[in-house]
Amino acid sequence: MCETPARILETTEDVLRRFGPAKATVVDVARALGVSHGSVYRHFGSKAALREAVTQRWLDQSHTTLSAVADAEGPAGPRLREWLAALFAAKRRKAGDDPELFATYMVLVGENSGVVERHVETMIGQLARIVASGVRDGEFTAPDPAATARALWDATNRFHDPAYAAEWSRPGIDEAFATVCDLVLRGLRA
Amino acid sequence: MCETPARILETTEDVLRRFGPAKATVVDVARALGVSHGSVYRHFGSKAALREAVTQRWLDQSHTTLSAVADAEGPAGPRLREWLAALFAAKRRKAGDDPELFATYMVLVGENSGVVERHVETMIGQLARIVASGVRDGEFTAPDPAATARALWDATNRFHDPAYAAEWSRPGIDEAFATVCDLVLRGLRA
Repeated sequence: MCETPARILETTEDVLRRFGPAKATVVDVARALGVSHGSVYRHFGSKAALREAVTQRWLDQSHTTLSAVADAEGPAGPRLREWLAALFAAKRRKAGDDPELFATYMVLVGENSGVVERHVETMIGQLARIVASGVRDGEFTAPDPAATARALWDATNRFHDPAYAAEWSRPGIDEAFATVCDLVLRGLRA
Repeated sequence: MCETPARILETTEDVLRRFGPAKATVVDVARALGVSHGSVYRHFGSKAALREAVTQRWLDQSHTTLSAVADAEGPAGPRLREWLAALFAAKRRKAGDDPELFATYMVLVGENSGVVERHVETMIGQLARIVASGVRDGEFTAPDPAATARALWDATNRFHDPAYAAEWSRPGIDEAFATVCDLVLRGLRA
């Protein structure tokens, strides 16, 4: 039988959902796949490597969609707003649709700070591309697009940092999001 | 002997620091004061009320200083920046000077969401006064100063929400703070 890394990661997610992050083992993953744990270790050298890969996969899920928004045609202002809204929507979906799995990933995220840092760098990189394109078109003013991108990430963290997930279903959160977007978009105007 | 509420709260903080939030009791507080626990209950009707009051006192510690900044004379822009910097400095001091007590208060804050909400409302109220004064003087544009104040609070939460305390001593944090301040201040310009 041929276990692709993708199938192993999917199964790992199932196992994590079923047993929780404290109890899930590589043996559980192998059993669920009907293979020896050696077959899993062939792709992921250790339990830590497998957990890191599954965390990365989960964090990267919305990268492609967001990346398409970041690199779309048209004025940078609406594109930035769309990107921030798409990020918020993706995070909300993850937190709301499967809260147990979300909690599990919060544990994994706590264990894999390197993976999280790389994810944040990718996100800020996409923001920097939007800011730079706005500067190029004379729509935005930003002396250092990378630093401004980091500031945009920081200024909107109530709407993407999982630490605030409990607030994402409260009344008024959409208005709060829109007001922060208005403020930072005005701050970018040339 | 006469136990003022202020002395009881000070002693409660000492007791919390010594025993931790899980173990500290009203009897410990009374013993540290050399009085019966009835004397404590005369001022604070229950252990919960005492914990709530000590949490409130801790959260309110920088209210007066910040309030003086909010209501000072002069242009609103520099005043807003000074207020945000004073808040960040106060939070950093609390987290850095006595990390154990800070951790203790994080537990209490988790128990007393009503106290936290009132504290946040006070903070946002001070921001709203600065924004409104800037609008009055033609320095800022903000159709709804209260909503804008909330957005300012949200946009700067990396620099005041204790969830981020671990980041407050990292290199680059002061530049990140300055860049967020620049962005939101530009966003307020008339």
